[in-house]
Amino acid sequence: MDELQVAVIGAGHGGKAMAAELAARGFAVRLYNRSYENIQIIAARGAIELTFEDGQQEYGTLQLVTSDIAAALSGAHLIMVVVPASGHADIARTCAPYLKDGQVLVLNPGRTGGALEFKQVLQQSGCTVDVIIAEAETFLFASRSSGPAEAHIFRLKNTLPVAALPASRTAEALHLLNQIYPQFIAAPNVLYTSLNNMGAVFHPALTLLNAGWIEMTNGEFQFYIEGVTPSIARVLERLDRERVTIATAMGVKAQSATEWLARAYSAHGETLYDAIHDNPGYNGINAPSTVRHRYIFEDVPYSLVPIAALGRRFGVDVQGIETMIQLACIMHGTDYRHRGRNLAKMGLEGLSIEEITALIEHGVEHDDYNRSASGSSMPDPIIVRPDS
Amino acid sequence: MDELQVAVIGAGHGGKAMAAELAARGFAVRLYNRSYENIQIIAARGAIELTFEDGQQEYGTLQLVTSDIAAALSGAHLIMVVVPASGHADIARTCAPYLKDGQVLVLNPGRTGGALEFKQVLQQSGCTVDVIIAEAETFLFASRSSGPAEAHIFRLKNTLPVAALPASRTAEALHLLNQIYPQFIAAPNVLYTSLNNMGAVFHPALTLLNAGWIEMTNGEFQFYIEGVTPSIARVLERLDRERVTIATAMGVKAQSATEWLARAYSAHGETLYDAIHDNPGYNGINAPSTVRHRYIFEDVPYSLVPIAALGRRFGVDVQGIETMIQLACIMHGTDYRHRGRNLAKMGLEGLSIEEITALIEHGVEHDDYNRSASGSSMPDPIIVRPDS
Repeated sequence: MDELQVAVIGAGHGGKAMAAELAARGFAVRLYNRSYENIQIIAARGAIELTFEDGQQEYGTLQLVTSDIAAALSGAHLIMVVVPASGHADIARTCAPYLKDGQVLVLNPGRTGGALEFKQVLQQSGCTVDVIIAEAETFLFASRSSGPAEAHIFRLKNTLPVAALPASRTAEALHLLNQIYPQFIAAPNVLYTSLNNMGAVFHPALTLLNAGWIEMTNGEFQFYIEGVTPSIARVLERLDRERVTIATAMGVKAQSATEWLARAYSAHGETLYDAIHDNPGYNGINAPSTVRHRYIFEDVPYSLVPIAALGRRFGVDVQGIETMIQLACIMHGTDYRHRGRNLAKMGLEGLSIEEITALIEHGVEHDDYNRSASGSSMPDPIIVRPDS
Repeated sequence: MDELQVAVIGAGHGGKAMAAELAARGFAVRLYNRSYENIQIIAARGAIELTFEDGQQEYGTLQLVTSDIAAALSGAHLIMVVVPASGHADIARTCAPYLKDGQVLVLNPGRTGGALEFKQVLQQSGCTVDVIIAEAETFLFASRSSGPAEAHIFRLKNTLPVAALPASRTAEALHLLNQIYPQFIAAPNVLYTSLNNMGAVFHPALTLLNAGWIEMTNGEFQFYIEGVTPSIARVLERLDRERVTIATAMGVKAQSATEWLARAYSAHGETLYDAIHDNPGYNGINAPSTVRHRYIFEDVPYSLVPIAALGRRFGVDVQGIETMIQLACIMHGTDYRHRGRNLAKMGLEGLSIEEITALIEHGVEHDDYNRSASGSSMPDPIIVRPDS
């Protein structure tokens, strides 16, 4: 293979940090952003200044800074999509005509159902090439952009689960991904990465149930340390239990929020309240400065809405999650259910657990898989289901 | 008639203030409380010390302080029930054997459906005497009890709507009531007093959506002035619209919260947010010190639950109200729908709007009313409906 070419799609906080960090380590990086205005200064300088928490400074020189998707994708081996989940469908439509066989595209992160929706939009756009779509469980950095051509990384995660769609191709994706980040590890499948969505549990509830405090103080309080009180923790526990139960119903062993706090931060406690307050990593993290924040307009339609849809489909009580969705809809005067990822957008409408499992594990619908498993080594072409 | 005898039922903040205020003005007052422990010191002194916001001090000497309901009710002309709505059914059961023809009993206030539930429990307890049950729209005072035999009144309302059940007897109730408080005025009927429940709109939502702030600071912020931010006001507007729509659907012209702020406080604004912030009466009113407060455990089951039940029954969208109920259930780990006032507890299950109107206006079910209206001047005895 030629020198690894990485395309970073999206020049927000995260995209700039990733492009700069990779470039600073010598990788060949192209940075794409839909609006050229936002990357004009980076393009003029050809680089992004990168700083770290320990004071270290780097300079990431980019190969290409462009709002031309064809140029960004041409010859790229690895495509790192770093945009809010609300942009996934648009990015899929934009990329569809230019993707090539063998490319690996990773959503950083997918939130819930990102890879499923992305693949669905590619198919609807007539894209038939053999590109591997994968999604990460969360974003690799905690980062912030301090200027138009600047990025600051607070910390990197030690490990980050990622899954391809289908899971049978996760190893191929990791083969490329681990060349740039050894932190990526294999998750069982995209249901695991999609349902292990801790932001879905924390972000909307903490924002909604501290709405007055946030608006009155512009978020000048500690989001987790002060914003998670015993009563609010009880609501978080309910949401978390619903999420984990949905995963169980779908055959996935998701981590509970307390298990995740123990693993990711070595924070322990009998209750979720105790575990959150045992996590020094939450010290100093302030609340968002407004309730018009991605904690609502991304995490509600692209995390809670698809999780609730899966819960309803498979008979799990999702009253807690529905309550958060409804409250967000009322507070923002927006129909997040309509805008959000439903079963149809994820391509899961009418599918049984077995069919979904076959789809995410092997990329074929259940019947096709049974047939192909017992016969030819090539899966049959996807058959449109009569009820879809 | 002999000298007017008033029984005050309940020796909480409000009951003590009312008993003291009436006694200080020379009325013959008996004070009842279920638990004698709480009134022991008042009984020993035979009086309650009363102070007012302007420094005025009074001494209200009571005729009787008792936990014997028979003694409290015997010979009383007017029975002022001043207990949380969660106590109404119990008080009805306790009073049932001792009520006498001609007595007037007023719930201060009824919250939503108080008089309906009270009357229903009296009937179930076999009480057949001709007692007038009425409910006030809210409580006459803002008061606080500063010690076991002390009460402080911040201010009295200028007017306070009250309705008897049936409304045809409101004038009789007012005849007695106005002897002690000229502030009482006739409301159209108990649906009006029950649906003009502003606490239902303000209390639970402001407590739930400021839960973190309340628990972190023990309520050390201004509940209305700071706790009502633009996003929270949007939620309040939604709840208020649902409440007013239900009233309209049931043939009652309820006041909107903005109309009420204009009438009660001369506070004006284009939005509810503006009107609330235009009300100097809200200055200095702090949040409750805990979310385990009657703003939830009284206002959810005895205001929002019955309002939502009426909304669902008559086809009004009550998603906003349901969201608040559900959130309270999750946060408190309590099934407030089950505990709260449903249609059955109000005696309204299966009744049409016409039947409910007949019941609250004339105290007879619709069919009976038609018959009695066209024939005899005495209503027929209540006929048990086959489906009830």
